[in-house]
Parts: sequence; structure tokens; C-alpha cells
Amino acid sequence: MKKKITRMQFTARQICEVINGKLEGNPEAIVSKLSKIEESDNSSLTFISNPKYETYAESVTAAVLIVNESLAVSSKQVQAVIRVADPYSCLSKLLDVYSQAGQGKQEVAEWCHVGKDTILGNNVSIADFVYIGKNAKIGNNVTLYPHVYVGDECEIGDDTILYSGVKVYPRCVIGKRTIIHSGAVIGADGFGFAPQADGTFQKIQHVGNVVVGNDVEIGANTCVDKATLGSTLIKDGVKLDNLIQIAHNVEVGENTVMAALAGVSGSTKIGKNNMVGGQAGITGHLVIADGTKIQAQAAVIKNIDTPNKGFSGTPAVDAREHYRQLAALKQLPDLIKKIAQLEKKING
Amino acid sequence: MKKKITRMQFTARQICEVINGKLEGNPEAIVSKLSKIEESDNSSLTFISNPKYETYAESVTAAVLIVNESLAVSSKQVQAVIRVADPYSCLSKLLDVYSQAGQGKQEVAEWCHVGKDTILGNNVSIADFVYIGKNAKIGNNVTLYPHVYVGDECEIGDDTILYSGVKVYPRCVIGKRTIIHSGAVIGADGFGFAPQADGTFQKIQHVGNVVVGNDVEIGANTCVDKATLGSTLIKDGVKLDNLIQIAHNVEVGENTVMAALAGVSGSTKIGKNNMVGGQAGITGHLVIADGTKIQAQAAVIKNIDTPNKGFSGTPAVDAREHYRQLAALKQLPDLIKKIAQLEKKING
Amino acid sequence: MKKKITRMQFTARQICEVINGKLEGNPEAIVSKLSKIEESDNSSLTFISNPKYETYAESVTAAVLIVNESLAVSSKQVQAVIRVADPYSCLSKLLDVYSQAGQGKQEVAEWCHVGKDTILGNNVSIADFVYIGKNAKIGNNVTLYPHVYVGDECEIGDDTILYSGVKVYPRCVIGKRTIIHSGAVIGADGFGFAPQADGTFQKIQHVGNVVVGNDVEIGANTCVDKATLGSTLIKDGVKLDNLIQIAHNVEVGENTVMAALAGVSGSTKIGKNNMVGGQAGITGHLVIADGTKIQAQAAVIKNIDTPNKGFSGTPAVDAREHYRQLAALKQLPDLIKKIAQLEKKING
Repeated sequence: MKKKITRMQFTARQICEVINGKLEGNPEAIVSKLSKIEESDNSSLTFISNPKYETYAESVTAAVLIVNESLAVSSKQVQAVIRVADPYSCLSKLLDVYSQAGQGKQEVAEWCHVGKDTILGNNVSIADFVYIGKNAKIGNNVTLYPHVYVGDECEIGDDTILYSGVKVYPRCVIGKRTIIHSGAVIGADGFGFAPQADGTFQKIQHVGNVVVGNDVEIGANTCVDKATLGSTLIKDGVKLDNLIQIAHNVEVGENTVMAALAGVSGSTKIGKNNMVGGQAGITGHLVIADGTKIQAQAAVIKNIDTPNKGFSGTPAVDAREHYRQLAALKQLPDLIKKIAQLEKKING
Repeated sequence: MKKKITRMQFTARQICEVINGKLEGNPEAIVSKLSKIEESDNSSLTFISNPKYETYAESVTAAVLIVNESLAVSSKQVQAVIRVADPYSCLSKLLDVYSQAGQGKQEVAEWCHVGKDTILGNNVSIADFVYIGKNAKIGNNVTLYPHVYVGDECEIGDDTILYSGVKVYPRCVIGKRTIIHSGAVIGADGFGFAPQADGTFQKIQHVGNVVVGNDVEIGANTCVDKATLGSTLIKDGVKLDNLIQIAHNVEVGENTVMAALAGVSGSTKIGKNNMVGGQAGITGHLVIADGTKIQAQAAVIKNIDTPNKGFSGTPAVDAREHYRQLAALKQLPDLIKKIAQLEKKING
Repeated sequence: MKKKITRMQFTARQICEVINGKLEGNPEAIVSKLSKIEESDNSSLTFISNPKYETYAESVTAAVLIVNESLAVSSKQVQAVIRVADPYSCLSKLLDVYSQAGQGKQEVAEWCHVGKDTILGNNVSIADFVYIGKNAKIGNNVTLYPHVYVGDECEIGDDTILYSGVKVYPRCVIGKRTIIHSGAVIGADGFGFAPQADGTFQKIQHVGNVVVGNDVEIGANTCVDKATLGSTLIKDGVKLDNLIQIAHNVEVGENTVMAALAGVSGSTKIGKNNMVGGQAGITGHLVIADGTKIQAQAAVIKNIDTPNKGFSGTPAVDAREHYRQLAALKQLPDLIKKIAQLEKKING
């Protein structure tokens, strides 16, 4: 079902933007290779800079022909002409883009959808049933497993792996060397609604996105919602386990790790190098200091200002204080009996 | 990958049901337009009501021809004949259905599976890799993102959006203007098993469904299980955050909101305008009054009869009582010391 | 979209392994039926054992021809020759494999990806947009709904159902009569990272797998991570509800049931016939005795050695002890007042 292909596809419009020229003809003409003027065909990008080749302007076949600002192009086999001050100097710029985006071997399956103007890096591997929207940018060596969805205008950094069924909503950005496991959802709408007088709720539109850093790992079925405005941030080196909820506008600092089923409510900022236990919760609009350790099933409901401290309990308190309370609670049933005896003694 | 198409497809059998006629010929004959008898072709639905057109019965070409109960149809180019008392009066009924289901522009991708006898509304947008089963009904202006699965006999209301990877099991019903985020699963089997003498469990078949109301929003990777019998109900205006579990036969009342990672066990009825905090749990077979506020990580294990009250703790109690207990618990370590001193004094 | 096909496909190499022969010619030659030498064609597996048929070696057409160790095969229409000591005795072995894997009716959709050397059992049903990797083995009567992903070298046992969107990572094994609901992820990487001096974490590769037993049911969006080494084990008869986290190297004993949103950390061994409540957590590296009942939202942080006991609370203690503490806690606010009065009396 898969075939190795070499795909280097740009539209005339994309090329025109890169070299900042003036476009004539079909802006959607598709170029899949760079050719010398004498070898150009209908999928070629070629150019005329040296006057001795100007006669080709009458006969050349090309998808896109780059010429200077005045040369008349009478050939009917040219789909688009881009005019620039100096065609030759544009070449190195184009060669850079070409070498970055177009020369590698790509393994792109037959049944995958790659939207218009989406750029695929070198050596990408895209499986059957992958859907990539429009204007997206897939970096070099990216691996997209079956049933991955990447929305319009997303960017996926080099060497990143999205396992089967990962969903990335439009306009989200994923860093380099990041791994996202099956079923994780990046960029769903935040849970924000304005209560109305009649008891209903009006949806607050979320126009932000999610930005995931480099060297991040996100577990299976974990959800990171997009920001209302701006970005929900998962910083470099963060490791999120499975089934975690990260709400809109949250920021998770570098190298913080979170265990499964933990949840963070909207707009909370978690520092660097935090460790958050499984099923722990952190309410919204808090700031949590660097190096904080939050134990499993704890519920943090206040800011944590001092770094490198441990917290546990619901609501979470200093972990040692919490252990003291738990130890005291254990003695409580006996204590109640003892007090009854004391009372008897006193009252007679 | 996408193409604008105008699709109005009905089978002879579907049309026959609408007008309650008697079918002769091929019940699967497919009609894609309504034509005057003199312009009919092999994908047309046409009819003869006026006697002056009866000679067409010998020569007309049609997918489906509607005639009165006695007219002999000798043309070999008619795939199916439907006989009714009054062909003309059936027309307005058919025009209604036609105008509702068939005239709009639809954007249906190339690689999507639409099962037999499924009706697509006007102006639907169906992406690549969407799978819709048989006998389903997709309303007007519905948007189905890539990798959506809609099982056999489901109904999706007008203006509803299912984001990439939403799964709706067969026979479930989703209302109008409802939004369901990626990875949410509607209608999986409830978790019900009959314990056997040997320690194993026998699966209890779940033959019910899920009915989701209008103006509902369901978060990413949230699960709503189908009922054993009858329906699990998510009423109008309900907002469910990500990663929530709603078990079989639960009822969630109008405009109730629930935060992420909350869970509701089987057969519990939650009133209107409840607010359920993150990671809160509600056990099975309970009734929760309208306007109840359940705090994050609380565990409700008893009915709540009085409306508009707050609950917290595991197990949940009145929220103010819970705070009093927490405040007292804080004092407990010191209290233990104090009692030891008192004891010494008394006994000492 | 679906078509009934009879598919029995083996490569010469696969056949050669089964009968332990010596292969000449194309190891990828594909056989789709077993034929008598006189009826053989270019998709046939056939053989010469009786000397009176040896002249066919000059003229026969076959995908794979099995002969003894010395017979010269001069036909150019034979794609692969397998030499064995006794061709006839190899036949019964091949017939066994053939009857198990090849004769049934299969319903395989048009748009599904079945990787190389994957064997499909009899009477499988594979929907559109299913992706099965290479060298996998799909048992008889298996049903794979749309958007299922089954990685390379997985094995799926007879009569098992994977609902829409289930993801099974490479090399995992699923038993017989097992049901896995939509969105469940089997075999994602365990959450294991080695902390580095600079605060970053280095990923620990997980080279193990998940082995799910027979008669298991796994709920929607539940995650079972693969082992670092060896296997994460979900034993026969286990029932897992929705949105559960089972970490790497965990073992869940026979007929244990777990309610939604529960989580088990790495390397914990849970006994048989346990009942784990919703949102309960069990930390890592523990051993839990058979017949243990863990209540909803409990957090088990120590081994449980005695079977058939109940536990609740965070951290979990014996359930009756926990109720005693909760009852005492209820009295605590009043107790504090009483002690203040006693103190006054004594000191005052």
C-alpha cells in the first residue's frame, strides 16, 4: 500500500512569496522539480537570467518560469511567470528551500489526504488514512501513523512521531523530537461558557492554540485544550502520562512530569521540574513554583510560592503536615473514648 | 481530495415508505432527481396522474414511476413502479422530503464510506476517512471531520459538529447544534456483568442507546455509555468537559456542566443546572437534585434531595460541614497533645 | 463498499517455514490455492511426490511447487520450488494450516490496509479504514470496525471484536472472545524516564508488549501500556471499564473488574477476582491479594497480603477502620468545643 516517492511540490504562489516577485498566469501551477531551461518540462521550475537564453521565452515548456522584469514571454507552454529584479540571485534562495523541503525520500501512503499548500519535509513517513489539512508544515523525518489528524496550518517539528489516532486541531504547533501517543487530542476547545440569565450557557470561542515544545512526550488519550486567546504551553522536556487533562491557557514548565489521570484547570501556570502524581488535580488560575512535588490524588487549590516542596491531601497541604493529620486521625476514635472517660471523671 | 457534489439519492423502497404505496420491480432502484414525465431518464423519479400522459406508460424511462392503482405499465425502461390511490397528491409530500434532504450543496470527500439507505442533509461536510453506517440520518449543515465513525441507524441533528475521531455507536441519536470533540465515544456498551458461581462474569447485553440533546458540548475523549434498555440521556444544553465517564442509563439534566475526569456510575439521575467539579465521582442509582454543586474530587454516595446546595469530600457531605471538619482536623494534632496534658493533670 | 472475498494467501517463504524445506526461486511468490498437479496454475501451491507425475516438472505452472530433494525442475512457469525429504507427508501439515487460515468467507472492505505476510482467519470482517500492519495474525471470526489500527506482528484471537478506533501497538497479543471498545489504546509506551543531572529526562525504551487474555472486556478510551521488558498482562476474564490507566508491567489477575477512571501504576500485580472502584488508584510495585475490594477513590499505597478484604480512603486502610475514622471525624468539631469546656473546668 505504500510507495517510496520523491515529492517536491510547490505552487507558483508559494515560490513567488519566497522570492518576493510578481506573478503572472496560474498561481496554483505546481512545480515538482528544478530544471535547466533546456531540459524544462511542464512540471519544472526554470529561469532565464543570461541574455543568451532569452530566445527560450518563445518556446520553453515550464510550470513556472522566473524572468527579469521586462522580458517578454510568448511561449504558450508556460503556466506561470514570476518576475524579479535579478532571476539569478533568486536561485540560491530557492535552492535552500528546495534542499530543506524537497529532496528527501518520502514514504507517503496511497490513501492519505495532504491538504493544499501543505509542505512535507524530507524523509517523512505518512501512513494510510492520515489526514493533514491545508497550509500545514510537516518537518523532516516526521512519522505519522495511521488515522492521525493534523488540522489546517499546524506545524509539526523535525523527528517527531505521532502514533495512530493522534488528533491535532488547526493552528497548533508541535516541537521537535516529540512523541505523542495514540488517541491524544491536542487543541480541542477549552471548556469555557458564559452563564446566561435563563440557566443556559453560551460558548466562549477559543481562538488560541496549543504550542508543544521539543523533546516532549504525551501519553495515550491525554487531552491538551487550546487557549481562549494566545497559547496553551507545554514546554520543552515535559512528560505527560496517559489520560491527563490540561485545560485551556495552562502553562506546564520545562521538564515537569505528570502521572496518569491528573488534571490541571484553566490558566494555571506550573513551574519547571514539577512532579505531579496520578489522579492529582490542580484548580484554575494558580501559580505553582518550580520543583514542586504533588502527590497522587492531591487537590491543589492555592498558589504554591516556595519551590521544591511536597504537597498532599484534598485540599493539598504541606505533605509532612498532611501525614501528621493522618496519624492524628488514626488516633481519633480512641481519643473520643478517652475524653468520655475524662469527662466522667471530672463531672463525677 | 474533496469535491462539491449535489446528491439527492433515495431508493424506491424509501420513497414507497414515504408515500405508503405498493411497490413493483426493484426496491433498490436509485433515484437522484425528480423529473417531468417527458424529461424522465434512468435516474428519475416521475409520475403519471393526468390521463393524457398515460401513453407514456408504454415507453417512459425512469428509476421510479408513480402511478395509480390500475394503470398498466408496459415500458421495460422502468426499474420500479409505485402504485398509490392518487399520484398527484403524493407529490407535495415528496417535494417536502426532497427539499429537506436533497437539494443542498454537499461537500463529501472521495474516501468516505456512506452506508446504504443513509440520508445526508443539505450542506453537509464530510471529510475523508469518515465512516457512516447504514440507515443513518445526517441532518443539514452537519460537519463530520476525518476519522469520525457514525454507526448504523444513528441520527445526527442539524448544525452539529463531530470533530476528528468521534465515535458514535449504532442507533444513538445526537441533537442539533451540538459539538462533540475528538476521541469522544458515544454509545459503547455499559459496564454490566452478571457474576457467575465460578468467579467469572457473564456479559449483560446492552440493547439501549444514547440520546444527546440540542446545544450540548462534549469534550475530548469523554465516554457516554449506552443504556442496557432504553436510553442514556444527555439533555439539552449540557456541557461535559474532557475525559468524563457517563455510565449506562445515566440521565444528565438540562444545562448541567461537568469538569474533566468526573465520573457518574450507572442509572444515576442528575438534575438540571448542576455543577460537577473535576475528578468528582457520583455512584450509581442515585438521584441528584437540581442546582447541586459538587466540588472537585468529591464522591457523592447518597441521594441529594434538596436543590441548590454544595457538597464536598469523600464521601461527600454538605460543603460547609466538610470545611468545619477540615478545620477541626487541622487542630487535631495539637488537640491530642492538649488532652494528654489534661489527662496528666487529672490523673496526676 | 464491502465485498465478500475468499482470501487464502501465503508466500513461498511462509510455506517453506511451515514444512521446514529448502527454497529455490522467489520467496515472495504468492499462493492463493492448493491444486492437484494437473490443475495447477500461477497462483497454485502444488507438489510432486509420486514418480509417475515427475514429467510435470518440465511443464507445470505454479506459484510454489514442492518436490523431493533431487528432482530436477525445468519448467519456467514455476515461481518457487521448495525441496523436502518427503513431499507427501508435508501435505497434511499444510492442509491443517490451510483449513485454519484460508478457506472461510471473509468480508474485507475496499479501503483497508493489510500489511505484507499478515494472515487473516476465516470469516473475518474488516471495515473500511482499518489498518493492519505486517506479519500480523488475525484469528477466525474477528471483527475489526472502522479506524482500528493493529500494529506489525500483533495477534488477535478468534471471535474477538475491536470497535471503531481501537489502537493496538506492534507485537501485542489479544486473546479469544475479547471485546475492546472504541478509543482504547493497547501497548503505548510505558511512562518511564531516567532523570538526568540537568533536570531533563531520558526516555527508557519499552521493548515489551501487552498480552490480553481470553474473554476480556476493555472499555472505551482505556489505556494499557506495554512492558519495559516482557509483558503487561491482562488475564482471562478481566473486565475493565472506560478511561482506565494500566501502566507498564502491571499484571491484572483473572476475573478482576475495575470501574471507570481507576489507575494502576507500573509493575503492580493485582490478584484474581479483585473489584476496584471508580477513580481508585494503586501505586506502583505492589502486590494485591486475590479477592480484594478497593472502594471508589481509594488510594492503595501498600501491599495487600490477606485475601478477600475491603479497603478505602486515601491512603487506603481497612474499610471498617476507615468508616470508624470518618465517623470520628464527624464528631471532631463538637469534641473540640467539649475539650475547651473541660479545660476551663479543670484549669478554671
